[in-house]
Amino acid sequence: MTTALAPTRDVGQGAATRPLRIALAGCGVVGGELLRLLDRASADLAARGRALDVVRVLVRDLRRERDVPVARERFTGDVGEFVAADADVVVEAIGGLEPAARIARAALARGAHFVTANKALVAAEGTALAALAAERGATLRFDAAVGGGVPALRVIESALGGARPRAVRGILNGTSNFVLTRLEGGATLDAALGEARRRGFAEADASRDLDGRDAADKLAIVAWRAFGVAPERVIVRRRGLLPHPERLVDLARALGARLRLVAECAATGAGIVASVEPTVVAADGALGRTIDEENRVEIDAGWSAPLSAGGPGAGGAPTATAILSDLLAPFEAPRPARPRAAAVADDRALSWIVGAPVAPAALLDACARAELRAVAAGCGPHGSRVIVEAVAWRALERALGALDAPERATIARLEEGVA
Amino acid sequence: MTTALAPTRDVGQGAATRPLRIALAGCGVVGGELLRLLDRASADLAARGRALDVVRVLVRDLRRERDVPVARERFTGDVGEFVAADADVVVEAIGGLEPAARIARAALARGAHFVTANKALVAAEGTALAALAAERGATLRFDAAVGGGVPALRVIESALGGARPRAVRGILNGTSNFVLTRLEGGATLDAALGEARRRGFAEADASRDLDGRDAADKLAIVAWRAFGVAPERVIVRRRGLLPHPERLVDLARALGARLRLVAECAATGAGIVASVEPTVVAADGALGRTIDEENRVEIDAGWSAPLSAGGPGAGGAPTATAILSDLLAPFEAPRPARPRAAAVADDRALSWIVGAPVAPAALLDACARAELRAVAAGCGPHGSRVIVEAVAWRALERALGALDAPERATIARLEEGVA
Repeated sequence: MTTALAPTRDVGQGAATRPLRIALAGCGVVGGELLRLLDRASADLAARGRALDVVRVLVRDLRRERDVPVARERFTGDVGEFVAADADVVVEAIGGLEPAARIARAALARGAHFVTANKALVAAEGTALAALAAERGATLRFDAAVGGGVPALRVIESALGGARPRAVRGILNGTSNFVLTRLEGGATLDAALGEARRRGFAEADASRDLDGRDAADKLAIVAWRAFGVAPERVIVRRRGLLPHPERLVDLARALGARLRLVAECAATGAGIVASVEPTVVAADGALGRTIDEENRVEIDAGWSAPLSAGGPGAGGAPTATAILSDLLAPFEAPRPARPRAAAVADDRALSWIVGAPVAPAALLDACARAELRAVAAGCGPHGSRVIVEAVAWRALERALGALDAPERATIARLEEGVA
Repeated sequence: MTTALAPTRDVGQGAATRPLRIALAGCGVVGGELLRLLDRASADLAARGRALDVVRVLVRDLRRERDVPVARERFTGDVGEFVAADADVVVEAIGGLEPAARIARAALARGAHFVTANKALVAAEGTALAALAAERGATLRFDAAVGGGVPALRVIESALGGARPRAVRGILNGTSNFVLTRLEGGATLDAALGEARRRGFAEADASRDLDGRDAADKLAIVAWRAFGVAPERVIVRRRGLLPHPERLVDLARALGARLRLVAECAATGAGIVASVEPTVVAADGALGRTIDEENRVEIDAGWSAPLSAGGPGAGGAPTATAILSDLLAPFEAPRPARPRAAAVADDRALSWIVGAPVAPAALLDACARAELRAVAAGCGPHGSRVIVEAVAWRALERALGALDAPERATIARLEEGVA
């Protein structure tokens, strides 16, 4: 796995009876959501021999009321006190270079498991932190730094059997993509940014998102994991959406296409090249269809199609879940071989399209007799078609049994929103 | 990680000087490609202290000539002899239930690392094999059994922080999807299947692909890893594409949509439901745009958008790469902190669209003076637009510097194939 820079190990080994001690720096949208996720997961984890205890939370403003399941006396506003906490795992979710770097170095120096979502920190000091981790037998994970909830680094590192891809490209900044989607819909930049902030996808200052610096930091980390080039050495040709993002959107629209802030790194004969820039992409392509705060990576492994991963690239729950995945990675308990859920037959009420070599009236009649809601959907060379809504498969099958030659009916399920 | 059913461990621990001994059952499209991948990766792996040695290859026909980098005397046609080989890792790529199950049990019983791409085997005996692995301290991995090169199980298991999704759906059979794409293009079923076979995406007998049994086996494994329900207990409501796949395609076409063989499992109040069936999906949706032999999974985690992964779902190289990823997973060596590649500035010849508040002639003239190939692309409220092809960023920037107020130009890169 990509981000376990030292061999994974069980920091809390032999500690099935002692809870895993977690220290969290930052209690904003992501940190707060992580505390709620940890609280919800704790019973299940304890049952698997992995009890958790959040021993320290570092915050900027101690007086602020917070809706998180952690006792107030565990909060501190003092970085020195936080760093001194005796924790097995240190999670950093404050962003920026300092005091994040100080927290990272202190945690790794004493052999802890350090998890961060901080792309600026990893892009600037990744190789130094990895070297420190290797030297001290600590572990470093930063999957949450790229892609929000999208396991971009995990896929790059774990799905290619250790081989290098030819290129990786994608949309790595959810805030700017949200803004572009809103501009396409006719909103102004101010209105788009306001909505992104209200929905928790943008900070008060979104300039690092809009000018491409955030995506460039993430791309440097991608280039590190994909090609082995030191992140702090990656030379990113970077241009952002400012000052006139709406003009960029117009340029793409004039071509019947869409504008995206595309990050790309590729291996060339000369070395690894990297760029973040406004790019006109096909409206019906994978990047053109990546909307709102979604992120997407496409990995060119030289196969018949790129390997891709997409999903929510911003927001508290996806990012906190990515941190939780990193947090638990070195401590995976064996899963029970005994199943934990029951399987039942699928007979939900769904929608269907039915074709049969009979007149529409015969099809509609068979449905009516079985009290099914059906509407005619046309005729064709193979007979007539009806759409039947909100009915379980067995009831539909029974109704069609009333037709002459029911085995000649052709039936497909209708995805929600189609027809 | 999802498929490490026992805690990952280093089977070859202390064996930095002794090569990792690999036994491979099956030397068809996938097995042969795996041997070539292993050969290509061996120098890099040896440099990282992980030398490999393919000690035994099980084949049906010993006389057949094979273009693989393994000495002929290591081949055997005898299952008993193969099972008796002293291997650290046993890879099974023959498919079907027997002798695959015998090979799996023998490998796990003596504590080896067992890797398989065999969905039928894992769907039928997954929990028994996992229990055996746990009892004997062996490891079992089968990521390659679902999704071909798409790390579907890895994403389900590693990206949700141990939480259960609400539902997982997708296209899990590359052969049937290839056939559907060709039928949409007007081909007959026979012609579509013939082409799939020539390209290595379909076996001689494609009935398990077309009737949904192959996808149902994969879905049972997905349901196991996503929801903890025993794969052999999963009740799949299954209908395939036969006897008249072209009529199903027509039904979807009549609605301006596309037909796909969609596999879905979901948690309901009553339990886990699962289905594989012809489904009409939006032409411009993620599943409708999944073409040819591609596979795709969409994981509904309750977030603002589903988490998705897609890529080549069939073919030798992607599937063999997935097996190689599984094979190496327990033996991950620490990555060197020292960078292994050089970063260079990106100044490749690319295509661009330029908008500027000047007349088209002024823009074209600036490009012509710099000897750039530019064509007018229209006028708008913000001025004129030109498309400039095959030019490096610095040359373009220099050319535009000749304009009055060059800082008012708006420039986006043009993705290949757009405009």
